[in-house]
Amino acid sequence: MNAIEYIQQHIQSLDWKREPRGLYEPIEYALQSGGKRLRPALAVIASDLFDGCRDDVLPAALALEVFHNFTLLHDDVMDNAPIRRGRPTVHIRWNENTAILSGDQMLIEAYKLLSEVKPQYLPQVISLFNKMATEICEGQQYDVDFEHRDDVSRDDYLMMIRLKTSVLLATALQIGALIAGADNDAQLSLYNYGINIGLAFQLQDDILDVYGDPATFGKAIGGDILCAKKTYLLLTALLKADAEQKKQLMQLLTDKTLPDQHKIQSVTALYNQLGVRKICEEVMNNYTMLALAELDKINAPEEKKLILINLAQKLLARKE
Amino acid sequence: MNAIEYIQQHIQSLDWKREPRGLYEPIEYALQSGGKRLRPALAVIASDLFDGCRDDVLPAALALEVFHNFTLLHDDVMDNAPIRRGRPTVHIRWNENTAILSGDQMLIEAYKLLSEVKPQYLPQVISLFNKMATEICEGQQYDVDFEHRDDVSRDDYLMMIRLKTSVLLATALQIGALIAGADNDAQLSLYNYGINIGLAFQLQDDILDVYGDPATFGKAIGGDILCAKKTYLLLTALLKADAEQKKQLMQLLTDKTLPDQHKIQSVTALYNQLGVRKICEEVMNNYTMLALAELDKINAPEEKKLILINLAQKLLARKE
Repeated sequence: MNAIEYIQQHIQSLDWKREPRGLYEPIEYALQSGGKRLRPALAVIASDLFDGCRDDVLPAALALEVFHNFTLLHDDVMDNAPIRRGRPTVHIRWNENTAILSGDQMLIEAYKLLSEVKPQYLPQVISLFNKMATEICEGQQYDVDFEHRDDVSRDDYLMMIRLKTSVLLATALQIGALIAGADNDAQLSLYNYGINIGLAFQLQDDILDVYGDPATFGKAIGGDILCAKKTYLLLTALLKADAEQKKQLMQLLTDKTLPDQHKIQSVTALYNQLGVRKICEEVMNNYTMLALAELDKINAPEEKKLILINLAQKLLARKE
Repeated sequence: MNAIEYIQQHIQSLDWKREPRGLYEPIEYALQSGGKRLRPALAVIASDLFDGCRDDVLPAALALEVFHNFTLLHDDVMDNAPIRRGRPTVHIRWNENTAILSGDQMLIEAYKLLSEVKPQYLPQVISLFNKMATEICEGQQYDVDFEHRDDVSRDDYLMMIRLKTSVLLATALQIGALIAGADNDAQLSLYNYGINIGLAFQLQDDILDVYGDPATFGKAIGGDILCAKKTYLLLTALLKADAEQKKQLMQLLTDKTLPDQHKIQSVTALYNQLGVRKICEEVMNNYTMLALAELDKINAPEEKKLILINLAQKLLARKE
């Protein structure tokens, strides 16, 4: 059974048929609405790499998935997002208070699962988990802060997406390796692989948001342009633009009368002039290479590493 | 130094001068806005009872206070409460999203503090803490559910306030005793003391909301009547009322045209007719007696128990 199948099976067997239903039904809804299960799968894959026992890593892997879905529940309230994985979000299906309270309970459930980790690993696992959870909240706050700042650098942006996206992938891998008995160096290499793959993943997401094929990309194209989100593409464009191009770009982004499609096309045309896509792809490829280099340092059978190598390459080639 | 002074000192020394300020400033604001510090003080008092080392119990005590303030932050959003301890609530001073995200981070900070508990006690302390945190969310959900139900019994109400109020006091005491090395029986007696004292406390709160002296009671009198909250008083009144009185009571509570003071006076007059206050005070006194009886079971010097005996008696006599 591959790691994702293993996780799917055990996510399904979590029991949410508890009272009061108003608290637990939204949790069940959120956790059964699909999703890639990437984070818990990474913990299992890391454990497999060192011949760890999957059942030992399972509680932590499930904690990571429940935690991830907790962040989605609260993020969707904060972003006022109506749809998640093709279904109404919890605050739409129920209400905001439900999304807040059931989300809180999911965070507590994550810690309950985590506490089932074997005692000899528990203090370290909790410490890694707490650090990661803190960084994700910090990343979310920076993301909000950046909307209102006009001095955001590309390094600021990379720092923010490292916190918001990468550390959860990296920590999933490290915890999986830790519980499988891997040494510190191997744990660290996997952590760094996760950081770099996460950055590459987010940069690809930013690129697809502008250049993706509407037929295969899950979301509408141009969403980031319409809300003037300070992505790596926009920050690069602002850096490369001359005074005239910069003025033009700012006007386009702040113009509230312009039809959406017109705005998207004009900004994309400017991006093309400035060669923004290519720069962004190079940075992304570089992070992918850094991720693969971390795998090289790990003393484990090459055929077992293949799944992580493939994951990196799949990310680079993905269209959705 | 008494337990509350000890806690105050250490709460002040928690460092929230971290970045991003948008995340940590509201946490600092919430934790420095006063409050009785009752919960962490109870953990220290329980530890003192068994000659425990205060510094050993401190991380868990602080975790309980941070957790308590996390629940207040999110509850205030859910209740749309504008004022807390005489100052604007976080969602008013900043905004709702800030209250959600900084609240989430406070819950994580509580677990960070908790993880500093000595390793030999950590699994048990985390398990008690998780159970308590879950019960508080469940209690909050029942509280919301009861607003829309017309079949709430007095036992339902007691179950709800046990979850929402008592278990945090009880768990604070148990964790303090546990870390001080008390045996299971003593831990359980302190837990039960906390449960009973919490129920008495909430019943007193319900009584004061109707019969309190506006000069000394912190909140406006009659708030529960105006929002037709199903308190022990109202549920008792509904139980004792004959058909005519019940009809009258329901009309008063649901009448939206009635001036506030008129409504409060008329409902209070009906409570007086039905002898509701006396019944409620008897139930409250009974819980206080049960709490004191639990203290009797504990093998500790009487002079050390005095602070918990006094606390129980102070609760009974309080006017605010």
